[in-house]
Amino acid sequence: MTMWDGRFTNKPDKLMLDFNASLPVDQALADEDIAGSIAWAKALGRARVLSAREVQRIVAGLKRILRKHRSGTLHFRAHDEDIHMAVERMLTEDIGETGAKLHTGRSRNDQVATDFRMFAKKRLSAVHGALCDLQKSLLKRAERDMSVIAPGYTHLQQAQPISLAQYWLSFLFALEREKTRVQNAIASADVMPLGSGALAGSAFPINRQAIARELGFSRVCENSMDGVASRDFALEALAALSSIGVLLSRYAEDLIIWSSREFGLVELDDAWATGSSMMPQKKNPDSLELIRGKCARFIGNYTRCASMLKGVGLTYYKDLQEDKEPLIDSLAQAMAGVQVFTQVVRTLRVKAKVIAASLDSFLFATDLADYLVHKKMPFRQAHKVVGRIVAHCVEHGVGLDELTVKQLREFSAAFSRDVRRVFDWKRALSARNVEGGTGMKSIARQIQRARGLVSSN
Amino acid sequence: MTMWDGRFTNKPDKLMLDFNASLPVDQALADEDIAGSIAWAKALGRARVLSAREVQRIVAGLKRILRKHRSGTLHFRAHDEDIHMAVERMLTEDIGETGAKLHTGRSRNDQVATDFRMFAKKRLSAVHGALCDLQKSLLKRAERDMSVIAPGYTHLQQAQPISLAQYWLSFLFALEREKTRVQNAIASADVMPLGSGALAGSAFPINRQAIARELGFSRVCENSMDGVASRDFALEALAALSSIGVLLSRYAEDLIIWSSREFGLVELDDAWATGSSMMPQKKNPDSLELIRGKCARFIGNYTRCASMLKGVGLTYYKDLQEDKEPLIDSLAQAMAGVQVFTQVVRTLRVKAKVIAASLDSFLFATDLADYLVHKKMPFRQAHKVVGRIVAHCVEHGVGLDELTVKQLREFSAAFSRDVRRVFDWKRALSARNVEGGTGMKSIARQIQRARGLVSSN
Amino acid sequence: MTMWDGRFTNKPDKLMLDFNASLPVDQALADEDIAGSIAWAKALGRARVLSAREVQRIVAGLKRILRKHRSGTLHFRAHDEDIHMAVERMLTEDIGETGAKLHTGRSRNDQVATDFRMFAKKRLSAVHGALCDLQKSLLKRAERDMSVIAPGYTHLQQAQPISLAQYWLSFLFALEREKTRVQNAIASADVMPLGSGALAGSAFPINRQAIARELGFSRVCENSMDGVASRDFALEALAALSSIGVLLSRYAEDLIIWSSREFGLVELDDAWATGSSMMPQKKNPDSLELIRGKCARFIGNYTRCASMLKGVGLTYYKDLQEDKEPLIDSLAQAMAGVQVFTQVVRTLRVKAKVIAASLDSFLFATDLADYLVHKKMPFRQAHKVVGRIVAHCVEHGVGLDELTVKQLREFSAAFSRDVRRVFDWKRALSARNVEGGTGMKSIARQIQRARGLVSSN
Amino acid sequence: MTMWDGRFTNKPDKLMLDFNASLPVDQALADEDIAGSIAWAKALGRARVLSAREVQRIVAGLKRILRKHRSGTLHFRAHDEDIHMAVERMLTEDIGETGAKLHTGRSRNDQVATDFRMFAKKRLSAVHGALCDLQKSLLKRAERDMSVIAPGYTHLQQAQPISLAQYWLSFLFALEREKTRVQNAIASADVMPLGSGALAGSAFPINRQAIARELGFSRVCENSMDGVASRDFALEALAALSSIGVLLSRYAEDLIIWSSREFGLVELDDAWATGSSMMPQKKNPDSLELIRGKCARFIGNYTRCASMLKGVGLTYYKDLQEDKEPLIDSLAQAMAGVQVFTQVVRTLRVKAKVIAASLDSFLFATDLADYLVHKKMPFRQAHKVVGRIVAHCVEHGVGLDELTVKQLREFSAAFSRDVRRVFDWKRALSARNVEGGTGMKSIARQIQRARGLVSSN
Repeated sequence: MTMWDGRFTNKPDKLMLDFNASLPVDQALADEDIAGSIAWAKALGRARVLSAREVQRIVAGLKRILRKHRSGTLHFRAHDEDIHMAVERMLTEDIGETGAKLHTGRSRNDQVATDFRMFAKKRLSAVHGALCDLQKSLLKRAERDMSVIAPGYTHLQQAQPISLAQYWLSFLFALEREKTRVQNAIASADVMPLGSGALAGSAFPINRQAIARELGFSRVCENSMDGVASRDFALEALAALSSIGVLLSRYAEDLIIWSSREFGLVELDDAWATGSSMMPQKKNPDSLELIRGKCARFIGNYTRCASMLKGVGLTYYKDLQEDKEPLIDSLAQAMAGVQVFTQVVRTLRVKAKVIAASLDSFLFATDLADYLVHKKMPFRQAHKVVGRIVAHCVEHGVGLDELTVKQLREFSAAFSRDVRRVFDWKRALSARNVEGGTGMKSIARQIQRARGLVSSN
Repeated sequence: MTMWDGRFTNKPDKLMLDFNASLPVDQALADEDIAGSIAWAKALGRARVLSAREVQRIVAGLKRILRKHRSGTLHFRAHDEDIHMAVERMLTEDIGETGAKLHTGRSRNDQVATDFRMFAKKRLSAVHGALCDLQKSLLKRAERDMSVIAPGYTHLQQAQPISLAQYWLSFLFALEREKTRVQNAIASADVMPLGSGALAGSAFPINRQAIARELGFSRVCENSMDGVASRDFALEALAALSSIGVLLSRYAEDLIIWSSREFGLVELDDAWATGSSMMPQKKNPDSLELIRGKCARFIGNYTRCASMLKGVGLTYYKDLQEDKEPLIDSLAQAMAGVQVFTQVVRTLRVKAKVIAASLDSFLFATDLADYLVHKKMPFRQAHKVVGRIVAHCVEHGVGLDELTVKQLREFSAAFSRDVRRVFDWKRALSARNVEGGTGMKSIARQIQRARGLVSSN
Repeated sequence: MTMWDGRFTNKPDKLMLDFNASLPVDQALADEDIAGSIAWAKALGRARVLSAREVQRIVAGLKRILRKHRSGTLHFRAHDEDIHMAVERMLTEDIGETGAKLHTGRSRNDQVATDFRMFAKKRLSAVHGALCDLQKSLLKRAERDMSVIAPGYTHLQQAQPISLAQYWLSFLFALEREKTRVQNAIASADVMPLGSGALAGSAFPINRQAIARELGFSRVCENSMDGVASRDFALEALAALSSIGVLLSRYAEDLIIWSSREFGLVELDDAWATGSSMMPQKKNPDSLELIRGKCARFIGNYTRCASMLKGVGLTYYKDLQEDKEPLIDSLAQAMAGVQVFTQVVRTLRVKAKVIAASLDSFLFATDLADYLVHKKMPFRQAHKVVGRIVAHCVEHGVGLDELTVKQLREFSAAFSRDVRRVFDWKRALSARNVEGGTGMKSIARQIQRARGLVSSN
Repeated sequence: MTMWDGRFTNKPDKLMLDFNASLPVDQALADEDIAGSIAWAKALGRARVLSAREVQRIVAGLKRILRKHRSGTLHFRAHDEDIHMAVERMLTEDIGETGAKLHTGRSRNDQVATDFRMFAKKRLSAVHGALCDLQKSLLKRAERDMSVIAPGYTHLQQAQPISLAQYWLSFLFALEREKTRVQNAIASADVMPLGSGALAGSAFPINRQAIARELGFSRVCENSMDGVASRDFALEALAALSSIGVLLSRYAEDLIIWSSREFGLVELDDAWATGSSMMPQKKNPDSLELIRGKCARFIGNYTRCASMLKGVGLTYYKDLQEDKEPLIDSLAQAMAGVQVFTQVVRTLRVKAKVIAASLDSFLFATDLADYLVHKKMPFRQAHKVVGRIVAHCVEHGVGLDELTVKQLREFSAAFSRDVRRVFDWKRALSARNVEGGTGMKSIARQIQRARGLVSSN
């Protein structure tokens, strides 16, 4: 028996019931569904559709269901169609006919949209908190690793020397933008559709603002059809989570490479690595590989929700039922990924000696060209001169800093004795105190700013 | 305790264990994993790595686990890392030290690739069978609806008259291509990686061909690194399933529109429709809407697997663990969607009277232009003439077949009395007996061919 | 000859030059690139790296290039690698050696990130303006169509009566959220990376804030590595545009269906429809079909950019070159789609008579159930009663409003003579003056609010 | 003026003409369109719809257009709607009224589907040829690098020693599967829709088989509606190309990492690398980074086409116009990517000395465990013993092969003097002559097989 079979002659097919059932997914919204129904019952009371006594019985019954749910003793039936029908069934079994009054003036269309938005808000807030924790973890690393001079890479080739703090801070500042997007997604979800009915608005004089206040919504939707049909808040949340996934995957890639024996710049703590079933020596950065791999999940979930919504007319089609699974998944996976990355960063061993040993003299090449610029050589020409010097060094297997001034002067007369000062890591860094640069003063300013961001969380 | 912690000092973090655990997903491969282990134990016996007695004990133990699994009494532990480690743990608990010999010369890398391919083959075959059933259902419909003359649509505008059978047959022939793709995907999966070890090949003299025969594989992989790293078979399967999803969504869209009151060409059986929680009159084609909506899931799963694989170097990274969930999901959903569509087609009510009443005289417009072509007017000019006639009819609210010959001659002197013959639905169809056309003879030939396809399944 | 071949022995292969060339795409950024170079030259002057005279020559030369570009007389060479190298080459050809000084302290890495952000800001603003125009168009429609009572659909089944204005307003309010997302994307793009150099920050004492002011940026990036590596602003823009595409596709779907002969609720103006090459009678809503189809392009562009970024480590890899094409395309297509929809809405013919005739008496079913609720029947029971009445009507082919009170009382004794008042479209609407509902008072409030939104643009 | 405006009163809007125009994309199909029209004219002649003289004039005119097209002197007009209308216009301008007869019995619906399939077949064949060339390039590398013993990686950690040939062969065998998918996609495209008309079949007695033979199609479609509506061949081609892109991206990732100074196993030839505009020392593997980045393009194109098709009913909607751009792009990019990779492999410098020096003694760990297995220790226990030995080595900074037998015996009494034989790279490889393994005999067999594949191309 379904709740809506008055006009039907045949019963739904068993296969159809399975295909149609959303309970395995939407029971995740049980808390929100019950809270929403409590608020709805009270609103019906205020609108004099239900008596005070009826409201009281319904609210008490719903609270009993909520308690059971939280203690894990709630039993769904095989063919409870969805969480809404399941809760109404249980309520009616518990308190009798009064339960059958709860759905007055409401539709599952506005009900599920409301549940889903409450759920999204709650979980997005949790992700926001986890992002703050990751920032704190990165700030500590930056403070600790300020004086570690490391190769900065482009194209995985050593490019210019940096303070390792510069790297951690790049991650921290990027996360600040992810937080903004999560906040924006929360604001988009923070609009209550309840009271929109099936599509045209409830036909009972409900005070929607009062319900919104009770359920923690900042606003109510301005239009009932939009309230029921719109899922752009979910798409926005999926995009925000996907952006986090992409960011994490990029830093994971670096740290996986840096964990190789050949790079050896960092080592994961045992607690965040795993071994091999066959090869006893293996210590694999699985935590980071999973973070990288799971990035694809966020992209897939976004694609799935967007292409589901494409071409689905108003006001409600069952296609929309497919909106919840991807968002629930992305929320859970983003939470886990951010938490794991936080611990990986916190427990990571930075191998300062290996890093120091890996600095290649070619990292000075830009500084050498800049030296020539200071000697009034146009940059493009200076670039060519140093290019030729580098080619010479590669051919003869010598370092850039091993050439004598005389040798350098064979490439350009602009070199003089003071060129030796170029080959000094600290000097190379201190030349880059421009705002945002890797110079120590710039990093100190960045850390100052980062502390502000992190403490204001 | 994990199975690989010899070289580790710290234990994995609880959060890491959760994040890393694949058991919730890969327990779906339990049957295949156990079958693979049985074959492996026998191969170790043939290679004299295990004694006959050891093989016997291991096989007996694995069969006990399999029986428990099938009877639903298998209990996994919270931190069994994956199905492989879970089975090995249970085996060792059951038969003691001999169980610890099972993993000799094998890696989880080649093991999981083998399990996953066996699983894919089995489920793809089931989908293939379901596609045949849907074809049978469509063939019956085509046979039944041959004489129903219906509007054929382009751009959802009535275009030319067709036999309704032509529509069902278009679906049937399209499904034949989906079947081919599923078969191709099975052939791609039908290559055994077992014996590839972690990446370099097993160091024990295993007869891989013998294992392949036992496990039902047609071939073994030619290269161990390729065997362990490749997942293109999964991507191909996801693409084949996505193509099915897209096809189903397109026919679902048509039938949803045709089920509207305004079109009213067909009506779903009650068993495949649902009602509304709020609006008592509603009978919604939810089954078809879900089929359409779930199409997005296949696209998302494809995108997810493809972008997961992108840029993942050889030979194995933990990223690859993310391959199973999308394929398992797409296989299950394709199966369900095809089965539901089969029943929807089988039980659908075609409303012949409504269809007949909905035929618009403008459906004859092409035939009227063709009439002028037969009178030697160039087609492009004929098209313009008839276009103007149609505009006239629209303006005056008359049907194309209501104009007198005299009125038609005001647009072109090429019209003569025989033009009246144009306005006959049966004639319009019979003009299209070209191969593949909607003429009755062509449809009879198509049905003949379709019977051949369906009976050969 | 390339600009960077000092250290190279062999020249790039012709195939490599083609594969690597980004000019066909990034010449779209020519305006921004030149503006950025002018600002950079001035900054080098302020930092005393260039003399006032050198700055003047460079700026004059760049302005000449800009003028040529705008007049379409700029000639790129086959193997100008990208827009940056092309402009530098032209400048040096024009003003000689001084041009070779422009690239001092700068890298293409920070340069292209700056160009791309300027471009994104400009085009996103244009899309924002177009969204406002579409809202205005919808507001006018809503004002005009207020008194058109139409069927509201769910599952493409007639559900409840609405004012057609309610439908247009749902679109208008949804667009307000799209505007917010576009604004958020602009804010994300509005951060200047210039001065970040290749990754470590420029080694010259550049005043980045001054450049930002000159180029219209609100902020400079806090960290040079983040400045060079980050593309989340592009991903956010792609998500915002994809959301617009999805929204448009949903309303397009409705209007395509409503344009069918069978629905016939609206008709597109000839200027926004097309005909058939074969069938003279056809008038197809191609504009809306293209809008729906192009939605997929936005999803594909998002997927493409996200999976490109996935796993790309810091600081710069050539993979990132693939970021521009999808965003440039999505920006252009969103602009066109919104503009076309604006005109389609503006010129649409609402066929009021057809709409009035299509209202089905079952649209009163919810109201009939609500009537019983007012008679103190629990809603779930009322729903069942009305469901049975509807089944009776379907079976006997009568309208809900054709039943006598006596007949109704056979289903429930709660019906009395006043039930006749239920069957009145205006009354049905006026029952839904809840905030956001389709009642006329509610719609008047919505229009008031909409006017505020539109006038504040 | 359009070709179909007979029934229209207003002209299309300029914006609509731009939005609707497909010529910028579909002019890529000009060759196929003209060839199709020639075959169509001949078929009309055979069907006695056109006279022999008319056929001759049309064919001659079309050939003139084709010649102009090939010499680049064809001029399209701003508002030629698409390639079909453009060709018909030019033909009519050239030969007069007879040109207006060409479109008899044909629709753009079957015409474009035919053009597109011909185009896809041709370009897919070219990709197939390029894949064969890449295989040849890999075979040569494998033959050359057979004796290079290199670390085999999993998780980017050194895992087991391999012959470098094993790596190249893994790529070669994987490509064989890509070729199969391309062949399957060609077979799917190799079905001719021409003669299907707009949807119902041509009303003229066309011999479709004869046209198919002339145009090089193996088959004609069995059903006209399917012929016009289906695009699964395009989706299959996009999936096949996407699979190639994914495969290339994975090997590109490896070679990018191996090109780093820290790994240093290989070096790209100058012709396939690029430099930096700022840093004179840089030599970046841009060719491989682009191959990796462009992988995302294939995924995006697949997603785009699949979500475009989702929910598009029969028989034709303008949405389908969006099918061509993604496939044309994926075909061109796959071609370029495969060609570039072929040259990268061909010209790559394998740095044998660096490879030899990078072999870590821990690569023997599995062999050491296998040694214990041969001494009858259960593998799981052997794995633990060796794990502890490795931990000891890591702690004390010694190599696995540096421990004395006595030291080893402290971990297990099973070790005896013969353990020293374990630490020999050649022996480690020769233990893996299992089919597909990295042993030299296995590799010789693989190369034998590969030669067969490559020579049969």
